[in-house]
Amino acid sequence: MSERGGTGRVGRPRSRGAADDGRTPRQEILDAAAALFSESGFAATSTRAIADRVGIRQASLYHHFAGKDEILLELLEASVRPTLDVVDALRSRAPDAAGALHALVVVDVGTLLAGPLGIPALYVAPEVQQPRFEQFRAHRRQLGAVYAELVRDVAPAGHPVDADVLGQVCLHLVEMTASLPSAPQLPEQVAAACLGACGVTGDQLAAAVAGGRAVRDALAAPAAAGRH
Amino acid sequence: MSERGGTGRVGRPRSRGAADDGRTPRQEILDAAAALFSESGFAATSTRAIADRVGIRQASLYHHFAGKDEILLELLEASVRPTLDVVDALRSRAPDAAGALHALVVVDVGTLLAGPLGIPALYVAPEVQQPRFEQFRAHRRQLGAVYAELVRDVAPAGHPVDADVLGQVCLHLVEMTASLPSAPQLPEQVAAACLGACGVTGDQLAAAVAGGRAVRDALAAPAAAGRH
Repeated sequence: MSERGGTGRVGRPRSRGAADDGRTPRQEILDAAAALFSESGFAATSTRAIADRVGIRQASLYHHFAGKDEILLELLEASVRPTLDVVDALRSRAPDAAGALHALVVVDVGTLLAGPLGIPALYVAPEVQQPRFEQFRAHRRQLGAVYAELVRDVAPAGHPVDADVLGQVCLHLVEMTASLPSAPQLPEQVAAACLGACGVTGDQLAAAVAGGRAVRDALAAPAAAGRH
Repeated sequence: MSERGGTGRVGRPRSRGAADDGRTPRQEILDAAAALFSESGFAATSTRAIADRVGIRQASLYHHFAGKDEILLELLEASVRPTLDVVDALRSRAPDAAGALHALVVVDVGTLLAGPLGIPALYVAPEVQQPRFEQFRAHRRQLGAVYAELVRDVAPAGHPVDADVLGQVCLHLVEMTASLPSAPQLPEQVAAACLGACGVTGDQLAAAVAGGRAVRDALAAPAAAGRH
């Protein structure tokens, strides 16, 4: 972290006045890169520009990351891994598929809103379709498969939307949350929209909301206990 | 169109064997550009690469378009204008807001599926946020406002998703149709998913489907008559 303090930043006009917010240099680089990728595109962003935005030397950036690809991969992975990590626990504690779907959407939206908001828009960037980002794409497919399995159990018989389509509808609705107008309890609103798309409304939706909350409470409780 | 025939293409290995499919040179350029923008990104695509893909000289491309920006603007506009052109007629003929929303989604998805499938993914590209594409963004906002007005009338009282959020949910679901798995009557499935997100399912959804079909039939009839 030595490159953040002392003389290295003296006289640098772009320096943002130190990481008083408690972010690590690594996280500052990720945040600056995410902002630049969104503003200018991945191809047009140089590691020099990222280092400048953070207020460090380019050489210092390479101390933390091998290059731009590694930064993007970490940003992409951070947008799916936290959700994947809790998927099994979430499904095993849910009273039914509708409750599991509600909880999954809320958790997944929470994962995305906790990181830089422009990341899902990068999923469709040409570079992300290259073999070097296959690890991320495999994780995203894994998450998509969970949505597909859940909606299959959630949608009532005769619902006019195919389960395959519904799984992708839910995944995409979650991923576009950052572009929605700000609203109270946005994750819960997106979850209700997903359940509605699956044909769950009214009293059934209210039951799914309650089920989803119970799952999230159950997930939070042991984790909190484990911190003692 | 002279650049498409004769000696201009002799010896060019990328030449695709002429526009036997009846596309105009202008349309061939648009299609080639759309494919390259999706594969490589807008910034990384040159007018030379577009001309090469079509099998024409770069100078010939400039006979049809002032440059890359004009090509992208036309692609973007073609993805919203045909829907905007029928919005007023569609709303005035719909039995109710649910029928109008169903018809609008089916028409809008039809507009997008009739053009190059990668266009909506370009909406989030950094370049498209520049002032020179404001005309397109204004048209897209106009379309978004129609969705917002319709969902306000469609969602039942007490629905847990705000109308502002629902309007954007519908717009985004329509725009991501090309990334959905192929399915029979995909436009109708997306319309049903949108109505479900708004809290319309079961018998009400069936009524909206019937209403939407009636609107589309009514729109098609005078247009066909006008061709005599």
